[in-house]
Amino acid sequence: MDYLASEPIWYTVLFMLTAVHLDTASHTPIYRQLSDHIRESIRSGNLNPGDRIPPTRELAGQLGLNRATIAAAYELLESEGWIKGHVGRGSFVQPWQNELTPISFASSRPSEELFPLDHFRTVCRQVLDGQDLGAILQLGSPFGYEPLRRWLIEDAFTSGISRGSDKVVITNGCQQALDLIARALIQPGDAVLVEDPVYPGLREAFSRSGARVIGVQVGEDGYRLDLLEHALRRDRPKLVLVTPSFQNPTGASLPLDARHRLIAIVRDAGALLVENAIYAGLRYEGAPLPSLKAMDETGETVQLGSFSKIAFPGLRVGWVLAPTRIAAALAETKQWCDLHSDQLSQAVLVRFAESGLLEQHRKRMIETGALRLAACLEACARHLPKTARFTRPQGGMNLWVTLPAPLDAAELLHRAEAVGVSYLPGRFFSATAEPGCLRLSFAGLNPGKIHRGVSLLGTLFKEELARARLAHHSQPALAMV
Amino acid sequence: MDYLASEPIWYTVLFMLTAVHLDTASHTPIYRQLSDHIRESIRSGNLNPGDRIPPTRELAGQLGLNRATIAAAYELLESEGWIKGHVGRGSFVQPWQNELTPISFASSRPSEELFPLDHFRTVCRQVLDGQDLGAILQLGSPFGYEPLRRWLIEDAFTSGISRGSDKVVITNGCQQALDLIARALIQPGDAVLVEDPVYPGLREAFSRSGARVIGVQVGEDGYRLDLLEHALRRDRPKLVLVTPSFQNPTGASLPLDARHRLIAIVRDAGALLVENAIYAGLRYEGAPLPSLKAMDETGETVQLGSFSKIAFPGLRVGWVLAPTRIAAALAETKQWCDLHSDQLSQAVLVRFAESGLLEQHRKRMIETGALRLAACLEACARHLPKTARFTRPQGGMNLWVTLPAPLDAAELLHRAEAVGVSYLPGRFFSATAEPGCLRLSFAGLNPGKIHRGVSLLGTLFKEELARARLAHHSQPALAMV
Repeated sequence: MDYLASEPIWYTVLFMLTAVHLDTASHTPIYRQLSDHIRESIRSGNLNPGDRIPPTRELAGQLGLNRATIAAAYELLESEGWIKGHVGRGSFVQPWQNELTPISFASSRPSEELFPLDHFRTVCRQVLDGQDLGAILQLGSPFGYEPLRRWLIEDAFTSGISRGSDKVVITNGCQQALDLIARALIQPGDAVLVEDPVYPGLREAFSRSGARVIGVQVGEDGYRLDLLEHALRRDRPKLVLVTPSFQNPTGASLPLDARHRLIAIVRDAGALLVENAIYAGLRYEGAPLPSLKAMDETGETVQLGSFSKIAFPGLRVGWVLAPTRIAAALAETKQWCDLHSDQLSQAVLVRFAESGLLEQHRKRMIETGALRLAACLEACARHLPKTARFTRPQGGMNLWVTLPAPLDAAELLHRAEAVGVSYLPGRFFSATAEPGCLRLSFAGLNPGKIHRGVSLLGTLFKEELARARLAHHSQPALAMV
Repeated sequence: MDYLASEPIWYTVLFMLTAVHLDTASHTPIYRQLSDHIRESIRSGNLNPGDRIPPTRELAGQLGLNRATIAAAYELLESEGWIKGHVGRGSFVQPWQNELTPISFASSRPSEELFPLDHFRTVCRQVLDGQDLGAILQLGSPFGYEPLRRWLIEDAFTSGISRGSDKVVITNGCQQALDLIARALIQPGDAVLVEDPVYPGLREAFSRSGARVIGVQVGEDGYRLDLLEHALRRDRPKLVLVTPSFQNPTGASLPLDARHRLIAIVRDAGALLVENAIYAGLRYEGAPLPSLKAMDETGETVQLGSFSKIAFPGLRVGWVLAPTRIAAALAETKQWCDLHSDQLSQAVLVRFAESGLLEQHRKRMIETGALRLAACLEACARHLPKTARFTRPQGGMNLWVTLPAPLDAAELLHRAEAVGVSYLPGRFFSATAEPGCLRLSFAGLNPGKIHRGVSLLGTLFKEELARARLAHHSQPALAMV
């Protein structure tokens, strides 16, 4: 965009902007009403990238407002990236089609921009040119494509996760692993302990199979073990599901001693331990911790893995690493669900893994993820209301924000979406979450978008907080009613 | 294999063969005992391809048998493809690693040799080079990859199958479509009518969701409508599942008037009609018949389709075409099962379909299938016991054989496998099938293998029948006991 070449005529913009209706009786401050109007003019196409917006003096004069009010509106718009001031030349509408498309903190997925597409193409071409393409495209085993299973088993064995008495069942991502476990191992009425808050697909997979799904509160360090111990005694669960590293949605991880203790108390209660390890490979800082499956000397722990959090979630390839009898039960169930998983994707992914490209890509995802996590933590500290709390994960894709009362993240969502930012309210993950809770999935966004998105949210939340306080103070004292 | 170059020394073979233990007291004829021994010697590697077997005169002399007995054994082995006589040179063991690997009539799948791999590679490379590869590898919709859904909807609309008020949900093959329907639409205790005999994955999908699965007998013309009408009144089913064309396992198809009547009686009973159309595109002879979905003017029929019977079943792509509210319920259930189906395969298959390559391949499959069906019918007429019955499908992949009593297809299976042929006994498809029933899936085998396989089965069945009659006759009359 060459701003000089377009030579914008700011007074036509001035004329348009003076048509704004400003309501001095509103709880929304005037500068905010003005910035809303300008933003809407940009989004609707009445103002275009490159258009020069009027100098503060001129617009203040036309609207009969203080110049500081206009300047506050412009500053807000500039912090959100809609306009940009150039010394000596004025302020201009920024290009926004790509950069200001909605910023979504709502999905816990890797960024498409980071997919190693060229490597994917190379590996996929190798599969296409291979001798066994015909066999790959023929019906296969409910356990999955054998070369991929072998690679996963060997990888689990050499890294100390498996003790050699396990089998792998390939699933359509982790979601199907949860569904198969629920269908193969759970009878209606069986109790299942899950984290609270938790990814709703996990809860749903078990409740749809008739399980009594019981949430146990998660703190900064994962499961609160006192509550877990209580629930183990009280509910006699058949199965306990744990995400020990970078739990979705809180980002919390169980420390090493808590892992030891959790394994012991679940074993003592006679429940099956199922470890959701799909985020474990994405540690950005802090010392690595062993997985529950590696630590459990009985070898009975079932572990769920997936490629989807590192790359290519559209391929739907995950797996279960489990003792043979459990793996056999899952494969039998899978047969009646969908025979087996797509084999082309499995063949591509095993080559991706064998060639070292997967590990290379994981390292890149860790470098990128570290920057994104840092950006998100910094943006939260800078832009969110000072009384907001948020978790400080060391990896994964999500952090958990608790806004101060009386803010309600669900109620505020559509207003956030109106300024182009989305997230998932806490109630999506927990029936008992405070209304102020929400999940920010940061891993799919670059640091610039993270800053802009959190800044937009912060502005909204602070204003709403100010409005609520004002409304509270302007209420008549109860004694006077 | 150059037989002359290897210059086999038949008398070492003669020496080996005279070690055979022949039991004249056995019900198995001597020529058969001898051929069993020679076959086993080939399979075990004691005799090798190219080895010359002794002239009948020499072997008869050594064993003290009639030359005609030896000749009968050699003829049997030659008809099975194990040996071949060359005029003036003698008989030689045939190469068998590829040609005499087990002949499986057990799987209703397309032949791998017929997969259009070069076209697959071309189309797959186009997808890899396309602009939307990143989006294909990102998470998608539970309804499926949009371009594939659009193609399927348009195809259904232009061919008169859909009236425009339908939606498509992509599934992991037809098996997942059945599972989703069972989970989304059936409550425990609901009655579901299915064909008897029927593909067990269909029955299992419904019974695992707690349905009362009720089989209604299938004859040469599909569902027996008198029995279906009775079951509709008696069992008040929520859902009726129908495979109107080339049903698995019988190969039976509903004639046109029966289709009209079936739609009317199912509608009158207020049950949901689910049409399994996965074999419908594979008609080898006879006039095409409209699908139930096309005939049902209410538009309420749900239709299941799949690419897997035409090509590439390892890709696991099927679909449900259903009224919007049902499609929405299925997609919602699918989300909790596995989020969505693999998108790479969907992207490849839609290009395969759009480019016309799918239709071109289907035509080839029809030409090939017609030859295979004809070979199977001819081989059954020639080789099976004269009192055996078998269906005469006009398409699809399967026919249904009923052996005369007292033959038991399940009991005979391991003996069939010992001579290198497998099939599925009728009990696999029906709890009430006569013991003599079995399914022959012919579409995955070339005519040579079909002839050899049915010939081997025919020999076994006839012998067993003769043995049974002999045993029956040699029993003392009951009055004399």
